[in-house]
Amino acid sequence: MVVMNRQDAADLSVNSSDRIFLRYKDRHAICILNISSNGVKGELGVYKEVAKRLGLVQGATITVEPARHPESMDFIREKVNGERLTPWKIQRIVGDVVERHLSDIELAAFVTALHIHGVSMEEVEALSRSMVWSGKTISFNRSPILDKHSIGGVPGDKTTLLVAPIVAAAGYTIPKSSSRAITSPAGTADRMEVLAPVNVPFDEIMGIVQRVGACIVWGGSIDLAPADDLFIRVEYPLSIDPLLLPSIMSKKKAMGSTHVVVDIPVGVDAKIKSTAEAEQLASDFIELGSRFEMVIECAITEGSQPIGYNIGPILEAREALETLAGGGSHELVDKAANLAGILFEMMGHENGKQMARDIVAKGKALEKMREIIEAQGGDPEVEPEDLVPGKHFYDAPAPADGRVLLFNNRDIVKVARAAGTPAAKGAGIQLFAKIGDKVEKGKPMFRVYSDSASKLETAVKQLEALRPVEVGRKVGDDMLKKRIGKPTAPTREFILER
Amino acid sequence: MVVMNRQDAADLSVNSSDRIFLRYKDRHAICILNISSNGVKGELGVYKEVAKRLGLVQGATITVEPARHPESMDFIREKVNGERLTPWKIQRIVGDVVERHLSDIELAAFVTALHIHGVSMEEVEALSRSMVWSGKTISFNRSPILDKHSIGGVPGDKTTLLVAPIVAAAGYTIPKSSSRAITSPAGTADRMEVLAPVNVPFDEIMGIVQRVGACIVWGGSIDLAPADDLFIRVEYPLSIDPLLLPSIMSKKKAMGSTHVVVDIPVGVDAKIKSTAEAEQLASDFIELGSRFEMVIECAITEGSQPIGYNIGPILEAREALETLAGGGSHELVDKAANLAGILFEMMGHENGKQMARDIVAKGKALEKMREIIEAQGGDPEVEPEDLVPGKHFYDAPAPADGRVLLFNNRDIVKVARAAGTPAAKGAGIQLFAKIGDKVEKGKPMFRVYSDSASKLETAVKQLEALRPVEVGRKVGDDMLKKRIGKPTAPTREFILER
Repeated sequence: MVVMNRQDAADLSVNSSDRIFLRYKDRHAICILNISSNGVKGELGVYKEVAKRLGLVQGATITVEPARHPESMDFIREKVNGERLTPWKIQRIVGDVVERHLSDIELAAFVTALHIHGVSMEEVEALSRSMVWSGKTISFNRSPILDKHSIGGVPGDKTTLLVAPIVAAAGYTIPKSSSRAITSPAGTADRMEVLAPVNVPFDEIMGIVQRVGACIVWGGSIDLAPADDLFIRVEYPLSIDPLLLPSIMSKKKAMGSTHVVVDIPVGVDAKIKSTAEAEQLASDFIELGSRFEMVIECAITEGSQPIGYNIGPILEAREALETLAGGGSHELVDKAANLAGILFEMMGHENGKQMARDIVAKGKALEKMREIIEAQGGDPEVEPEDLVPGKHFYDAPAPADGRVLLFNNRDIVKVARAAGTPAAKGAGIQLFAKIGDKVEKGKPMFRVYSDSASKLETAVKQLEALRPVEVGRKVGDDMLKKRIGKPTAPTREFILER
Repeated sequence: MVVMNRQDAADLSVNSSDRIFLRYKDRHAICILNISSNGVKGELGVYKEVAKRLGLVQGATITVEPARHPESMDFIREKVNGERLTPWKIQRIVGDVVERHLSDIELAAFVTALHIHGVSMEEVEALSRSMVWSGKTISFNRSPILDKHSIGGVPGDKTTLLVAPIVAAAGYTIPKSSSRAITSPAGTADRMEVLAPVNVPFDEIMGIVQRVGACIVWGGSIDLAPADDLFIRVEYPLSIDPLLLPSIMSKKKAMGSTHVVVDIPVGVDAKIKSTAEAEQLASDFIELGSRFEMVIECAITEGSQPIGYNIGPILEAREALETLAGGGSHELVDKAANLAGILFEMMGHENGKQMARDIVAKGKALEKMREIIEAQGGDPEVEPEDLVPGKHFYDAPAPADGRVLLFNNRDIVKVARAAGTPAAKGAGIQLFAKIGDKVEKGKPMFRVYSDSASKLETAVKQLEALRPVEVGRKVGDDMLKKRIGKPTAPTREFILER
C-alpha cells in the first residue's frame, strides 16, 4: 500500500487500487495505490515494509509510474465469473496473496466467489499444494507420520491433549501442529500453552519429535501455511469458510503426515449439522488425501454438547490431565480412545480402541504427556490441582427441577468469551450437569470463571439474556421453542476453527 | 476504523474486522477493528473523523467494549448465499455503506455476490431508491424534466455537450449531472470543465436551470448518490459493475427526471458487445423507469469507433463547439440529433431528429450553449480556436497503403490515458481518418497530444506496442488476427463509466 495525493494520482491517470511502480536507486517495488484527499501534493506515504525494501529515507525523491495489475487479478475475475481455475492460476493467486500483492477487496472477491461457485476437487488440490509451497515444510525422516485433526465446532474439545500422548506412547510419531482459538473459547494451542510453551521454533520441533515421538505446538510459530492466516482475515468477517479443506490439508502435508484421522463432530449447534453433510465432507477428505498419498479416515462424533465438563484453557488442560490420570471425563476418554484407536487400526492393530484405553489405564499416556510437556519446556511434574482457574466465579442456578435437555453451544461459547477466554486462560465454564442429568431448581448447574470481576459481570449478563442450557422434564414437554412476531435478522453465529 | 494492539484485542476477545464500541464522556462511536502488532498496549489509534466525533484529545482515556456487528452484514451474507434481498434489507445495507459502517472486505463480498447471483428487478429498484434516500435530491418545480444518459464505453463521445443545448433551445428543461472519467480519457464533466466550472454548488443549480433551462455540472459536487462512489471504489479493482442500473437510475431520480433517453453504444470494443445484450439492458431500463414513474426510451447506437475525430477534454470540447457552430463532425451531429429527436418525439413532436438538426443549423443550440457556459461561470465568447491542446504531439504514420478497417477502442483509450488524459486536459488524440477512409503509408493517420514530453514518449511507446488502428485493403485480406503459442492471460480491459 502506498498513499498518494488525489491530484498526483490524477496526473498519473491512476485510480485507487491501481498498482504503481516505485523506483529508488537500483531497487523497486510494486504497491497498491490508496488515494488520500489529505495527502500533500508531491509526497508519498509508504509503509515501513516498503521503505525498508527500497532503502528509503524520509524526504528521498523517488520515481513513480503506473504498473500493470498482477495477473492473478485476472484469474480472480475468472473465478468470480464462474470459471474453474487451473492449478497454475491458483498457484499464482496464492503466491500473490502471500506476497501481499492483492488488496482486501480482491481477496474478499476471491473468497466470496469460491464460496458461491464452490471449489472443485482439482481446485482444492491446487489450493492445498499452493499453500504448502508458499510456506515451510518439515521432514522427520521417518514413516509413518500420524496425525489427528478436528474440524472443530464443539466447545471443550480437548481430545488432542489425549490422542497425541496415547499414540506416541504406542511408539508412533505424531507431531501435532495446532491452532489458537479464532471464534471459540480455546484452541488446542491455547490449552497446551497452560502446560508448556507452544511457540516452539521450527528447528527445535524436529529434536522434540525425535526424542519423544510427539509434540503439540502452535502452527503459527512455524509458518507452515502463511496464506491461511491471510485468507482467514477475510473469511472471518464474511462468516464463510470455503478454504476449510485446503487449509487443513496443506498443514498436514507440510508436516509430512502419512496417516490422519479427521474428527467431524455433528450436532445442531456444531459446525456440521447433519450426518449427510459430515459424510460428504469425509469423502472429500479421503479423496483429497489420496491425491497427496496420505491415508485418511474420518470419525463422525457426537457434537450436541460440550466435550467433558470444562471449557476454557486452564479448565480444559486440568480435565485433560485428570482424564489421562484415569479419572476425569468418560466422554473424553471414550472420544480419545476411539480416535487413537482408528489410527492404531490404520497401522494394522486389532481392536485399536481397547489398545488406546489400555495405554491410558496403565498410565503410559500420562507418562508420555509429561515427556511432551518437558520436551517443550513445561513443568513435567504438573498436577491437576496446580491448574487454578480465575478467582472470580458465578454459579448459574438451574431454572427448574428436571433434567438438562439441551446445550446451546454457541451461547455457551459467547458466555465463555465474555468471561475472557481464550486470552484469559483462567476464564471458562465448568459444567455440573450434562444432557440427561438431573438438576434441582436454584441449585448450581454450571460455574462461570473469570480473572476479572467486570468480565464476569458481562458474562453473567450474557448468560441471563441467552439461557444457554435448557432444562425440562423431557424433550417435548414444552413444544414452543421460540415465538417470532416481527421480522428479525436470524441469529447466526459463525464457527471458524482450523 | 480503529487500530488496537494485538494483546488488547485478545484481552477483549475480539478479532480484526469485529466492531468495537468506543465511549468518551457522553459520546460514542462504533468502529471496525484493525489489529496491529506494532501498536502500543493500552493505546488506540483512531482516524481524525472518529476523534472529532468523540471530541477526543491526544492522551485521553476512553472506554472500549465489543459491539455487535451491523445487521446489514447478515443481509450481505444472505445475498452471498444466493437469497433475494427485500427492499428493507437493501436499505439497511446502503445506509450502512454511506455511514461507513462496512469494511472493504464486506463491501467487496456484497458487490461480488450481486455480480454472481445477479440482481432482480425488485432489488435494482430497492437499490436505486436506497441510493436516492442516502443522498440529496433536487426539485425544479416544473415538469417535464428531460435527461439524456449514455452508458458509455466509446471514446470521444461528447454528445451530451450538444444534446443539452439542443433540448434547452427548444424550451425544455434538461439539468445534466454528469460524471468524470474513471477509466476513459474524458467524462462529460471533464469536457465541460474546459468551457466552464462544473463544480457548481447545489443551491446555484436551481437558479441556473431556471434561467437557461439546462446545466452540465459534475454530479460529484452535489452529493446526489453518495453510495455510488463507495460502490465504485470496490467495483473498479474487481472490474465488475453490477450496480450500473441503480447507479444511473438513482441519479436520474435525484434530479427529478421525468423523461430520459438512454444511449447504449454497441460495438466489439464497447461496453455492450451485441444488439441482444443492448436490447436486454434497454428493457431493464424501461421497466425500471416505469417503477419510478419515469418515461424512458433507449437508443442503440454505433459504437465501433470513437465518436467524431477527437479524444481528450480540450480536443472534445473544441469539436463540440465546432459542431454546434455547424461544422465539426457529421457523426456527432447525427448522434446528437437522434438522441435529442427521441426526447422531442417523447414530448409529442413529429420528426424530432429534423427538429434537432434545424435547431443546430439555425445556431440556436450554439447560442444556448453559450448561455449555459455563462450561467456556470465560463466565458460565453469562447471560440474553438481558443481551445488549444497540449504543445507536444506525435503524428502516427499509417503502417500501409489502404483503408482504416478497425479501431481498437480500448487501446486508443490506453494511449490517450498514457498521454495524460483525463487530468491533463490538453492531452488526447486527434484522428485524421476513420473507418473506411483511405490512408497512405507513412502519412499521418492520427496525432497524439500531450502537455508533457515524457508522457508523450510513454504514449508513443504504448502506441507502437498496441497498434490500435488496423489498416488494410479490405476486411478479410489478412484472415489471421492473432497467433497464440503459449497460455496467456487474456487482455481484458474494463470500462467503468457512469
